[in-house]
Amino acid sequence: MSSPADYYDLTRIRPEVLAALDKINALGATFAARAKAVDDDASFPTENYKDLADAGFLGLSIPQEFGGWGFSMGEYAMVGAEIGKYCGATALTFNMHNSSMAWSRFMYDMPNLTAGEKAAFAPLRERQFRRAMKERAIFSQPISEGGQNWTSKPNQTQARAVDGGWKINGFKKFASLAGYCDYYTIVCTEVFDGQEPRHEDTMLFVVHKDTPGLQVKGDWDPLGMRGTNSRDLILKDVFVTEDDLLMPRGIFGKTLPNWPHMMATLSPTYMGVAQGAYDFMVDYLKGKIPGQPPIDRRMYATKRITVGKMYARLANMRALWWQAFSEAKGFPTKGEVMRMYAAQYNVMEGVQEIAALAIRTCGGQSMLRSLPLERMYRDSRCGALMLPYTSEIMEDYLGVLALYEMDEIDTAPGDEGGARNSLWRGDSGTLRMLR
Amino acid sequence: MSSPADYYDLTRIRPEVLAALDKINALGATFAARAKAVDDDASFPTENYKDLADAGFLGLSIPQEFGGWGFSMGEYAMVGAEIGKYCGATALTFNMHNSSMAWSRFMYDMPNLTAGEKAAFAPLRERQFRRAMKERAIFSQPISEGGQNWTSKPNQTQARAVDGGWKINGFKKFASLAGYCDYYTIVCTEVFDGQEPRHEDTMLFVVHKDTPGLQVKGDWDPLGMRGTNSRDLILKDVFVTEDDLLMPRGIFGKTLPNWPHMMATLSPTYMGVAQGAYDFMVDYLKGKIPGQPPIDRRMYATKRITVGKMYARLANMRALWWQAFSEAKGFPTKGEVMRMYAAQYNVMEGVQEIAALAIRTCGGQSMLRSLPLERMYRDSRCGALMLPYTSEIMEDYLGVLALYEMDEIDTAPGDEGGARNSLWRGDSGTLRMLR
Amino acid sequence: MSSPADYYDLTRIRPEVLAALDKINALGATFAARAKAVDDDASFPTENYKDLADAGFLGLSIPQEFGGWGFSMGEYAMVGAEIGKYCGATALTFNMHNSSMAWSRFMYDMPNLTAGEKAAFAPLRERQFRRAMKERAIFSQPISEGGQNWTSKPNQTQARAVDGGWKINGFKKFASLAGYCDYYTIVCTEVFDGQEPRHEDTMLFVVHKDTPGLQVKGDWDPLGMRGTNSRDLILKDVFVTEDDLLMPRGIFGKTLPNWPHMMATLSPTYMGVAQGAYDFMVDYLKGKIPGQPPIDRRMYATKRITVGKMYARLANMRALWWQAFSEAKGFPTKGEVMRMYAAQYNVMEGVQEIAALAIRTCGGQSMLRSLPLERMYRDSRCGALMLPYTSEIMEDYLGVLALYEMDEIDTAPGDEGGARNSLWRGDSGTLRMLR
Amino acid sequence: MSSPADYYDLTRIRPEVLAALDKINALGATFAARAKAVDDDASFPTENYKDLADAGFLGLSIPQEFGGWGFSMGEYAMVGAEIGKYCGATALTFNMHNSSMAWSRFMYDMPNLTAGEKAAFAPLRERQFRRAMKERAIFSQPISEGGQNWTSKPNQTQARAVDGGWKINGFKKFASLAGYCDYYTIVCTEVFDGQEPRHEDTMLFVVHKDTPGLQVKGDWDPLGMRGTNSRDLILKDVFVTEDDLLMPRGIFGKTLPNWPHMMATLSPTYMGVAQGAYDFMVDYLKGKIPGQPPIDRRMYATKRITVGKMYARLANMRALWWQAFSEAKGFPTKGEVMRMYAAQYNVMEGVQEIAALAIRTCGGQSMLRSLPLERMYRDSRCGALMLPYTSEIMEDYLGVLALYEMDEIDTAPGDEGGARNSLWRGDSGTLRMLR
Repeated sequence: MSSPADYYDLTRIRPEVLAALDKINALGATFAARAKAVDDDASFPTENYKDLADAGFLGLSIPQEFGGWGFSMGEYAMVGAEIGKYCGATALTFNMHNSSMAWSRFMYDMPNLTAGEKAAFAPLRERQFRRAMKERAIFSQPISEGGQNWTSKPNQTQARAVDGGWKINGFKKFASLAGYCDYYTIVCTEVFDGQEPRHEDTMLFVVHKDTPGLQVKGDWDPLGMRGTNSRDLILKDVFVTEDDLLMPRGIFGKTLPNWPHMMATLSPTYMGVAQGAYDFMVDYLKGKIPGQPPIDRRMYATKRITVGKMYARLANMRALWWQAFSEAKGFPTKGEVMRMYAAQYNVMEGVQEIAALAIRTCGGQSMLRSLPLERMYRDSRCGALMLPYTSEIMEDYLGVLALYEMDEIDTAPGDEGGARNSLWRGDSGTLRMLR
Repeated sequence: MSSPADYYDLTRIRPEVLAALDKINALGATFAARAKAVDDDASFPTENYKDLADAGFLGLSIPQEFGGWGFSMGEYAMVGAEIGKYCGATALTFNMHNSSMAWSRFMYDMPNLTAGEKAAFAPLRERQFRRAMKERAIFSQPISEGGQNWTSKPNQTQARAVDGGWKINGFKKFASLAGYCDYYTIVCTEVFDGQEPRHEDTMLFVVHKDTPGLQVKGDWDPLGMRGTNSRDLILKDVFVTEDDLLMPRGIFGKTLPNWPHMMATLSPTYMGVAQGAYDFMVDYLKGKIPGQPPIDRRMYATKRITVGKMYARLANMRALWWQAFSEAKGFPTKGEVMRMYAAQYNVMEGVQEIAALAIRTCGGQSMLRSLPLERMYRDSRCGALMLPYTSEIMEDYLGVLALYEMDEIDTAPGDEGGARNSLWRGDSGTLRMLR
Repeated sequence: MSSPADYYDLTRIRPEVLAALDKINALGATFAARAKAVDDDASFPTENYKDLADAGFLGLSIPQEFGGWGFSMGEYAMVGAEIGKYCGATALTFNMHNSSMAWSRFMYDMPNLTAGEKAAFAPLRERQFRRAMKERAIFSQPISEGGQNWTSKPNQTQARAVDGGWKINGFKKFASLAGYCDYYTIVCTEVFDGQEPRHEDTMLFVVHKDTPGLQVKGDWDPLGMRGTNSRDLILKDVFVTEDDLLMPRGIFGKTLPNWPHMMATLSPTYMGVAQGAYDFMVDYLKGKIPGQPPIDRRMYATKRITVGKMYARLANMRALWWQAFSEAKGFPTKGEVMRMYAAQYNVMEGVQEIAALAIRTCGGQSMLRSLPLERMYRDSRCGALMLPYTSEIMEDYLGVLALYEMDEIDTAPGDEGGARNSLWRGDSGTLRMLR
Repeated sequence: MSSPADYYDLTRIRPEVLAALDKINALGATFAARAKAVDDDASFPTENYKDLADAGFLGLSIPQEFGGWGFSMGEYAMVGAEIGKYCGATALTFNMHNSSMAWSRFMYDMPNLTAGEKAAFAPLRERQFRRAMKERAIFSQPISEGGQNWTSKPNQTQARAVDGGWKINGFKKFASLAGYCDYYTIVCTEVFDGQEPRHEDTMLFVVHKDTPGLQVKGDWDPLGMRGTNSRDLILKDVFVTEDDLLMPRGIFGKTLPNWPHMMATLSPTYMGVAQGAYDFMVDYLKGKIPGQPPIDRRMYATKRITVGKMYARLANMRALWWQAFSEAKGFPTKGEVMRMYAAQYNVMEGVQEIAALAIRTCGGQSMLRSLPLERMYRDSRCGALMLPYTSEIMEDYLGVLALYEMDEIDTAPGDEGGARNSLWRGDSGTLRMLR
């Protein structure tokens, strides 16, 4: 099994981060052992979360002043990728939790917030941090509503003002952790009578799982990433107040378009799955999988050369992805955004290539469900489909950004329903500019 | 859903063959509807077999004089590929049955058999043909013994002469149809005291499922092709007689090396799976999947161009595979053998590429198990692993045949455990020459 | 060096066609020996044309009643591909000549011509056939005008009626054989005062090279296919009469959209270049290139496996391309058209892949200009760029045809300047429908 | 045209290095303007060298105490890659010069040298540094002898002791800069009567171009990288003394196997060519190539998506290559060596993919020799062929290192003539261990 020294330049990693990566690798065998049952039953990896919480990982992105570790986004990404080697579903759901924390963390520091906005934001985010640290609460962050790219029009889950707060009605598709998390971060649009819903009225509320009106529904029987338990979340007259805001109104629209790496946080999981599939294959070819006969299969030139090519692919994914995440920040440059999109694309495509080749190279036994490789093969195909940065959307974004200057993008010709422009639109981006 | 006119030159297909293809397409919706349950339970598609038997398909390869249809190998392949569009497991198991019939059919016609061999062969094959036609018996043909390429050394399942016949002892891995077929064709090696087992002592016996000493064992929980029910078959002192021979002793070794297309008959299934995945994708993008919302997703350039490339790939696989199978015969030329190997390789690789892209192009919903695409994605990865013509072995065979003349192959340098030479070794090939 | 038995099913080739292929292979070494000088100087392969004329190839597509061989389009394609193995430029220019003959041949037989149209057509085509047979004249057929896909709007070279005929003014880009052929077939649009040029006024005139007003101009210094001498052809008040028509007015528009394989005739050349590059590599690795040291390089696993994969690619290109051309006809089905587009795409992409890998596999010496492989590498990149069936356009056409029914195509959404619909538009296609 | 901000994290680059990169980009247009003539005539880019010398680049790797800039290997690589954007031949020959300086620089600092070795080394390297700084001398470093991987057996160019020194006899193939440099660094093997030549007797001498017995011979007419003027260098009784040593005897063998990045220094050139081809394409599609009509071709979805994919590929090559070179050092870890091999492989393969796609995406005009893209296409194919780290050898090395522990490599099975083990063999590597 690989270790960070196999792919990172250790001189560029802080000791406490390296220690966190090592901790994950120490937990890894346990996570891996539980992964089959989680996958078989499409159940949530509850025990893994207990272990992660015990080791302090729920506060990884929380500032140190609130008791967390204060890891940067890039440091978080490295942790996520280590988890993904052992259990994709754990890594993917951990990302959902971590994202809620990271939004509160990094958006607050954006230089385009006013002093007033920061003052309003401070107690809100403190509440969430406290929940994660004290209650060891797990957060989920369902976004998809089952349609197209959610960034292209206002969220269809709607909040309408009522006495003392709002009532939320709507529906979230693929709500990871549904039924298992403690809090849901709900993205919705505030609507007003006689007015079209608008991007700038986007609001984020944090809703406790036991709030009346919340209902988890539907089946969850997918090809892969089954432990995410991404069922439907129905919201019917869910009552929320000012205190439940994740961030004050308006901040989401001022910050998200300028922090585009925030939406790329599914990729650590898949970087990890790719590494995990490769690692398993190497051990299998060496005859070193516990419980399997110690057959050495390394003398075949076909296998050797394929392994060489797979390593070369894995290495290019990893290096780009690592560079891109180490550059994650608010108000990135165009080059930084393009690298991040390219990293997302390479990881989501590459993980599938590697998992498919790993099975082919191990041979017939490796497609049995008693070994983890077939699960990784199933998990590996899910990443490229996940909004908002699907592989197709990355192709669109990269092509447009590569060919047009920022001041040309709004008027660049494109097929009406088709060409999708970058979520990030330069420093003056707003949610309204998305299309 | 596609029809033969979409990929074949109809002027080159006999009307009765076209009628058979159409019959499969008429049965297709029924097969497709049953495919999920077969996959969920890893159960045998028993009902599909009843339908196939009712329509006469069990005798497809049986000569017309014995009541069959007398289809050529190439014509069989087209039928197999149509079945594969709807249910991979049905196509793959149907191939097992059909192969037993085809061996009896085509080996008998080999010009290198003596008159005496043919005389001995005639009643044996008549017995099998009668079983398939009269009893509507289903045959299985387990070959793998769980180790390496079975062509490289004598079968480890062994027959030892006893009074009035032989006793067989051994083990077959991945015995498709185990527990569901009526007869097993067992490849084994006759052994004699004080002598190393030899390729030329290979024998094939047809054993009824209820014969004492036969036992189906083990789990069958694989990634894909789950309906093949390929469990372990244990043979313990299974008694057989002369009458149970599939063909007289020695004929296997004289004929198989000269009929190498016989081992490529897994590819029709995967050609069909590739077509089925592509067809599903096209219908899905059109919004024409029954039970799904009629959303048109065809306006996206990313999807269109990917579909264009997928068609170009599917078309090249199909054309080569069709040409190769239309050339199937005893004593093929080197060019014909290489085309067949190349067809096998292209199909087994291509089907996985196409299934993976089909999911990516359909998007997130298509990974749900309520739709058939994720099953096709799982099934698609199995072909490249299946002995004796795995993708890796095809790479080896093609490289060696491309670079060496037939009279150089035996002395071509190669890595000891690695480079694998062609099963087919020119017109003078014998099983003993295999390595 | 390969022979037809290496890639075709010989039972499906007429003996006289096989004889023609053999004749080319007999001439091949001579063509190959001349290829370097032709490439160095970007000169026309004049001597090769003399040899081809001597052997009767100029009349290959001409009906037997006019002294030709009456080969079908598919049979022509096989001849072209054999020439391409030895000299790409000869194959490509031979296609220009042959296309003029083929247009006269096949368009005349289209069932949608009226008796009157055929009567008017007969003497015109007879004149061209006679020139090729008696005068051994070489025809060229410049189409490109340097802009975008020429099928998308009326030709910009224009004919305007004058006393006793027309005067043509305009410009042809990449006019292969410019300065070397005897006749140019000029596609132009008849224009009338006060009226926009229209597709239906497209006319084709055959113009002798010495006609006043014709001028060959400009440099010709390209990456590859240098012997085509594709300079600019300037037409300034070139006078033509009714007798110079290749076909009567209106027939072009009635027939071309229904004979779409006619535009795919550049692919035989590149099919041949791919084969030639592969053949050279195999001989080189064997140490069998005359004048080179007899070093055997076949023992390297990296080379073997790459060669195996290259063969598998070459075989899929060849089989699809062969099937597609064997189906060439007027009023093809949608499946036949899509296969042809897919064949064009596979060949034009595949030839570059194979040439690039052939150099990589041969190693450092093979990039020297004293060996032919580097020329093939340069030639190989040109095919994908050639209008009207560039690789990009094929991606567009295939995507649209795969996803839309014929009656949906005209209204299919697309990006304004981008998505390009099929030249062929079903049986009711007219040039006007092109966009 | 791109700038370093487009692909590097500028916060990780020293200001003086960034200034050097900017200087190259300022010189770039001039280099680009000269590139066609250099390529046409296969002449050496003499004027570019004057410019580089004027700007101080000849001393880039020379320690500051000797008047140089003291750039690290990774910093040199960035400079080389910027040059490569404009003229591949200049970048490649600059690498030859720089390598001689780098060997003197970095080998001297190796911790496994004894004090005595360092004392003997000091005056030798000072002499070379002085020549480069004072005389502005250009160094060449021919290695290839036209056979196989030169690391696998002792150099065949041989030095034999004579009075007061040695006489060298032998031959160097592909001697870049032959006839243009001031000094040749000659790798040879000292031979002794009655003893087989041994790796440990490898010596490096620096020979002035006018030394008697040196002769530049042969043609140089390759596909690409024509300005390197890599003709044959014949050495006939070339007399050298102790003073001409590049480093004392024995140090080469103690250091090279432990500084494997030193052999990867051809890759900066190709990284640059890839970037240059991509940059040209983007400008061409924008209609911004000086002298070309300002046609905007960016609205085509086929082009956009291809550009997006090309960017994603370019980005993964760059990031891995940058990480690998930033880790260049003596005694690297296994992970660092594997990343370097993978970087070399990705760059040498990727540059060809990108150049081929750039032509395809620009379209027909871009294959004319009046535009630089066709030269880049030709240059791009050369990298994968260059010893000692050809693409095939990288496949071998990576496969073996990925699958075997360091203590297993010497006994790993392999095909006799085929599988090539890593040049680097762990910390105890010696040249003798190479095979």
